[in-house]
Amino acid sequence: MQTEFLRILFVGDIVGDVGRKIVIDKLDFLKEKYAYDVAIANIENLAGGFGITKETYDAIEPYFDAFTTGNHVWDKKDFLINIDSMNKVARPFNMPNTKGKPYVIVEKNYTQVLVATFLGRIFMNPVENPFILLNQLIREDLPTIKIIDFHAETTSEKQAFGWFCDGKVSAILGTHTHVQTNDEKILPGGTAYITDVGLTGCHGGVIGFKKQAIIEKFITYMPTKFDVCKEDLRLNACIVDINVYTGKALNIEKINEA
Amino acid sequence: MQTEFLRILFVGDIVGDVGRKIVIDKLDFLKEKYAYDVAIANIENLAGGFGITKETYDAIEPYFDAFTTGNHVWDKKDFLINIDSMNKVARPFNMPNTKGKPYVIVEKNYTQVLVATFLGRIFMNPVENPFILLNQLIREDLPTIKIIDFHAETTSEKQAFGWFCDGKVSAILGTHTHVQTNDEKILPGGTAYITDVGLTGCHGGVIGFKKQAIIEKFITYMPTKFDVCKEDLRLNACIVDINVYTGKALNIEKINEA
Amino acid sequence: MQTEFLRILFVGDIVGDVGRKIVIDKLDFLKEKYAYDVAIANIENLAGGFGITKETYDAIEPYFDAFTTGNHVWDKKDFLINIDSMNKVARPFNMPNTKGKPYVIVEKNYTQVLVATFLGRIFMNPVENPFILLNQLIREDLPTIKIIDFHAETTSEKQAFGWFCDGKVSAILGTHTHVQTNDEKILPGGTAYITDVGLTGCHGGVIGFKKQAIIEKFITYMPTKFDVCKEDLRLNACIVDINVYTGKALNIEKINEA
Amino acid sequence: MQTEFLRILFVGDIVGDVGRKIVIDKLDFLKEKYAYDVAIANIENLAGGFGITKETYDAIEPYFDAFTTGNHVWDKKDFLINIDSMNKVARPFNMPNTKGKPYVIVEKNYTQVLVATFLGRIFMNPVENPFILLNQLIREDLPTIKIIDFHAETTSEKQAFGWFCDGKVSAILGTHTHVQTNDEKILPGGTAYITDVGLTGCHGGVIGFKKQAIIEKFITYMPTKFDVCKEDLRLNACIVDINVYTGKALNIEKINEA
Ligand SMILES: [Fe+2]
Ligand SMILES: [Fe+2]
Ligand SMILES: [Fe+2]
Ligand SMILES: [Fe+2]
Ligand SMILES: [Fe+2]
Ligand SMILES: [Fe+2]
Ligand SMILES: [Fe+2]
Ligand SMILES: [Fe+2]
Repeated sequence: MQTEFLRILFVGDIVGDVGRKIVIDKLDFLKEKYAYDVAIANIENLAGGFGITKETYDAIEPYFDAFTTGNHVWDKKDFLINIDSMNKVARPFNMPNTKGKPYVIVEKNYTQVLVATFLGRIFMNPVENPFILLNQLIREDLPTIKIIDFHAETTSEKQAFGWFCDGKVSAILGTHTHVQTNDEKILPGGTAYITDVGLTGCHGGVIGFKKQAIIEKFITYMPTKFDVCKEDLRLNACIVDINVYTGKALNIEKINEA
Repeated sequence: MQTEFLRILFVGDIVGDVGRKIVIDKLDFLKEKYAYDVAIANIENLAGGFGITKETYDAIEPYFDAFTTGNHVWDKKDFLINIDSMNKVARPFNMPNTKGKPYVIVEKNYTQVLVATFLGRIFMNPVENPFILLNQLIREDLPTIKIIDFHAETTSEKQAFGWFCDGKVSAILGTHTHVQTNDEKILPGGTAYITDVGLTGCHGGVIGFKKQAIIEKFITYMPTKFDVCKEDLRLNACIVDINVYTGKALNIEKINEA
Repeated sequence: MQTEFLRILFVGDIVGDVGRKIVIDKLDFLKEKYAYDVAIANIENLAGGFGITKETYDAIEPYFDAFTTGNHVWDKKDFLINIDSMNKVARPFNMPNTKGKPYVIVEKNYTQVLVATFLGRIFMNPVENPFILLNQLIREDLPTIKIIDFHAETTSEKQAFGWFCDGKVSAILGTHTHVQTNDEKILPGGTAYITDVGLTGCHGGVIGFKKQAIIEKFITYMPTKFDVCKEDLRLNACIVDINVYTGKALNIEKINEA
Repeated sequence: MQTEFLRILFVGDIVGDVGRKIVIDKLDFLKEKYAYDVAIANIENLAGGFGITKETYDAIEPYFDAFTTGNHVWDKKDFLINIDSMNKVARPFNMPNTKGKPYVIVEKNYTQVLVATFLGRIFMNPVENPFILLNQLIREDLPTIKIIDFHAETTSEKQAFGWFCDGKVSAILGTHTHVQTNDEKILPGGTAYITDVGLTGCHGGVIGFKKQAIIEKFITYMPTKFDVCKEDLRLNACIVDINVYTGKALNIEKINEA
């Protein structure tokens, strides 16, 4: 029997081992509190802060229904080798000439959910135009419920994409900046929107990495190694409720849990 | 007689006529609710969305004690002509070879507050290094209480600057992205921090501007005019309480008021 | 009767009134010296240094068979209004959702020449992928002789595009940097290549503009007005000979004429 | 006895093993042809295309009097470890808070030559302002003859710096783009100038690297490995003659030798 709405948990960029730890530690609590139906997470920084490996993927795979990615998704060679067996991973949709699945379809409670990642382009490397390629997902044969992770740098591109997608998809959930924004809302056409879901990992550094080396780089301009930091662990996420008949979002709530 | 703490209201980027309107409309309510001692606002987008004119400055000057700025501060010629008479404006500190005041000193309740603007450099035009120039404000003869607006694009540069300044200034309050972040906190050394205070103006568009033309630009790549939008007006700000003896921040609270 | 080869004159970015003047002054001499069959010029900076107006277009229209453009092509509103009557202008091919002709076909000596502009993307605004869109010009029903202006910033993107197009088009002629490079050659597949054809206008400033204001901007970071400079006028161009049967380039020679 | 002028050979970015080979192969011929007094080379790409190692440094050290560098200079850890023993290397001058020598002083024929590297900032990582820091080299106690490698991306920043330095130093020789430009000249104040000296290494690829992988990256957007290519080896350089009494340049000539 279908429920009237489907509740989605979407976890913001999980960074490194501490990110994997906090997310696994917190999921029971979140499950109990929110009773979500579908769990999705952005994992572009899953392994050591950059990219994904088979081992780190396997460690969190059982806890989620689908994974979104980002500009760092290809950083580890191991990922390209193993991508075909990672069935829950949605590679960036607007990198069409690569391996990996353009989107993932999750089935829960007799309802299907399409999950996809789109990359922004402002202050990022060139990829295909997300505004133009979105159209390829607006088809009768695809699920009405569509959750899009828009992985982008600037607030302007994210807001523009959100408005552009309003009424066409169920949610545009921003990632990449690793800082949660305070602007979650349901747009007039029924699309849930937040500029950035935030960071799941160490909040005591710089976007999840040890601060001292990064500060030094800003002073000396020397290349530096980015090491995942370990303190002030927090899970950043949001909960989106979606009408299963219309695919419209009913509610969005952000989570910032220590 | 000195009070034990000083309460600062800091208003995020005021954009255009609707930004000026909402801020003037709301200040009575905020004054009553928060009883702040000092009011500061970022005004780089005060006039028509880009830059400042004498006329728009005069319209809001009476309501504030000091103003911070940003990368768009020089966009209107009128500003350069009249800058010497705009005593409350702190031009970007790390643009040292320009006109305007490098910082503003406000005196309230027998206590002095230094207000300055620093610009970031990642994905922005080159300016002097903010990390290196901060040192010029760490002097015995300057007020202990220092409020710094860090006007920057990326979360990494903002967080790195926040940690770098921790214990040296009273507050690092981010601006420029026009989206309020959900990460306000007091750093261990006593510096109040938020990645972005947000936008004071129309929240129904793209960073304060009409969405349709901007969406079209993302599809056609054609140059477009940025017009201030008019709906969903909100004031974004934060309140920071500062110990007047030590200059340390005691509390930071964000405001997102329709 | 067809000649065995067609000789093309391609003139690098014509900047402002002095650019228009030097090109008109020199064409008789070049015609006599090189007896070229087809004359093409890049005119993105034709009017006052940025963009094109109907008036400036009309001033040089009689001297050329086709015009290429660039990132600044839309800077003047007048251009958009009059573009439909400017039959010789090839707007950027990888901006497909705009007005203007995607390419121009010139007929000379019973031979057709396709002229197109492609924009680069590295350190430039997003547009469609030039490598992917090139394919749309590789069709039986289009002329075998194809002259492509690749208007791009970096040497790496230009060289990569040159090699990618080798054997597919007659010439990849770089523009945009306003400095002629010393690397003209015929690639193994028969495509003529040069990283940048150079600047037609004032060589006594900074990329065709008055140097003093630009130097000041590098020191003060203040916005500045770019005014076309007037001294050391030079015409930068190249001559490409093309086999009319195969479309292969036989020779490329650069011109740097005071 | 002092000669009337000093002849400088400046070799553009030496890339990888093939770059080291061609430069060593050609120096006898160049020495015979030009009888230069001082030999300088840019070696930011000496080792495998990125950075410098002790071993590759030692291989070419005997052939040159001084070396300039660039943005890639720190890419190999080995360099930082050994930099103190590499006496001929001028690290980027506008990275003041690093190890390495800010400039190198060469003595030949009883005449001293100062050699320094400055980095540009447009489309490059932030460093200190080259226009402002140049002043630190304009001192009575430093040699009158000053050869500056300006390692920068854009033609506008390079030309602006050239004009700014005119009359203050003997030569501004551009590097970094790996493509030689056709604009060498003596500026009115007596400074030799060229926008880019070019590439010493493989000219049959993309800026010295294998083209196929780079072309693929432009199509698929996937990260790729940059391998030094091996064909069409050329040495790019220039010869600058300098009046030993005034430090003014008398002549500049570019070299592009297969
Ligand atoms: Fe991330
Ligand atoms: Fe990312
Ligand atoms: Fe702003
Ligand atoms: Fe700004
Ligand atoms: Fe141009
Ligand atoms: Fe251009
Ligand atoms: Fe290089
Ligand atoms: Fe370089």
